[in-house]
Amino acid sequence: MSRPNDPIDALIALMARLPGLGPRSARRAVLHLIRKRAALLRPLAEAMMAVADSARECLNCGNVGTEDICEICRSEARGNGLICVVEDVSDLWAMERANVFTGRYHVLGGTLSALDGVGPDQLRIPQLLTRLEAENVTEVILALNATVDGQTTAHYIADRLEGRVALSSLAQGVPIGGELDYLDDGTITAALNARKRF
Amino acid sequence: MSRPNDPIDALIALMARLPGLGPRSARRAVLHLIRKRAALLRPLAEAMMAVADSARECLNCGNVGTEDICEICRSEARGNGLICVVEDVSDLWAMERANVFTGRYHVLGGTLSALDGVGPDQLRIPQLLTRLEAENVTEVILALNATVDGQTTAHYIADRLEGRVALSSLAQGVPIGGELDYLDDGTITAALNARKRF
Repeated sequence: MSRPNDPIDALIALMARLPGLGPRSARRAVLHLIRKRAALLRPLAEAMMAVADSARECLNCGNVGTEDICEICRSEARGNGLICVVEDVSDLWAMERANVFTGRYHVLGGTLSALDGVGPDQLRIPQLLTRLEAENVTEVILALNATVDGQTTAHYIADRLEGRVALSSLAQGVPIGGELDYLDDGTITAALNARKRF
Repeated sequence: MSRPNDPIDALIALMARLPGLGPRSARRAVLHLIRKRAALLRPLAEAMMAVADSARECLNCGNVGTEDICEICRSEARGNGLICVVEDVSDLWAMERANVFTGRYHVLGGTLSALDGVGPDQLRIPQLLTRLEAENVTEVILALNATVDGQTTAHYIADRLEGRVALSSLAQGVPIGGELDYLDDGTITAALNARKRF
């Protein structure tokens, strides 16, 4: 099935480049799409074109949206002095699904990494410093992933912001529904050290 | 993240309807696409539109392609009197990847199923009978899946074709690279019964 210029083969090759799809699942997805040409394939193509035409990164926080300044940064209600710093847009979406944070975000776009040559200037850290005054920020919440790279980045940002604004980070401990037997030593240690009165 | 009319949310909802992608992996795929707007998202949208405009089922064999009669049915060289009957286009693609079969195909589009109300007329079986004379078929190879439904369908087709054309089916036995310890009883029984001189 390697006919040059065949539109079906071309579509399979492009679909296989999506995260989570390999060649086999790309073929399966394309066959499914061909069977549902009117109900799924055409709407999907149109939705992709619409996103390709309109999607952009928010100039203020790095969130993706369809305007130069995203909905969250435009909302007056969310300008309450709290900024939650996340690594990636997917983390921002996860926070929004939890539907508990009422402030604004700042998406770093990755973590510091000497190996990969990612320094503070690649991570929108200068923009975060600018926002402190511009948006009268009172507290910066570091919601970076609990990985080595995430925590290294959190410490770097904490150093840069120290004394200028209140700093906090997400609590570490036993996840809701978690069983001790399945937790790693680090999590149990963190949960024990951060224990609270019952 | 349930804003009505947001193109990104709309795209995520459509992507989540692909086989192999759920809501989480659809979000991941869409973020990836937004990051690679020029390199992947736009080409993918265009490839989908091209397939939506051109893909159709071959009127002769049921394969998918971009013409009313598919490449394989158009090829004179493949009209060698052999027809390989498969359940689905994905099976046809698997046979073509093996690159060993030189005849034409007939895609049933499923298996007989009393429960789901799938009878012979839904399965392109009448068209198969028509092709026997029209294409001077000498042998029909039943390459249906080794499942109960597949084998039931194979027996039904064998009954219908008996005496009109030579019939064969794929051999059953130990797969290449297979280890006996990991094989089911049915496969071992089939392999033993069909043993051949060394």
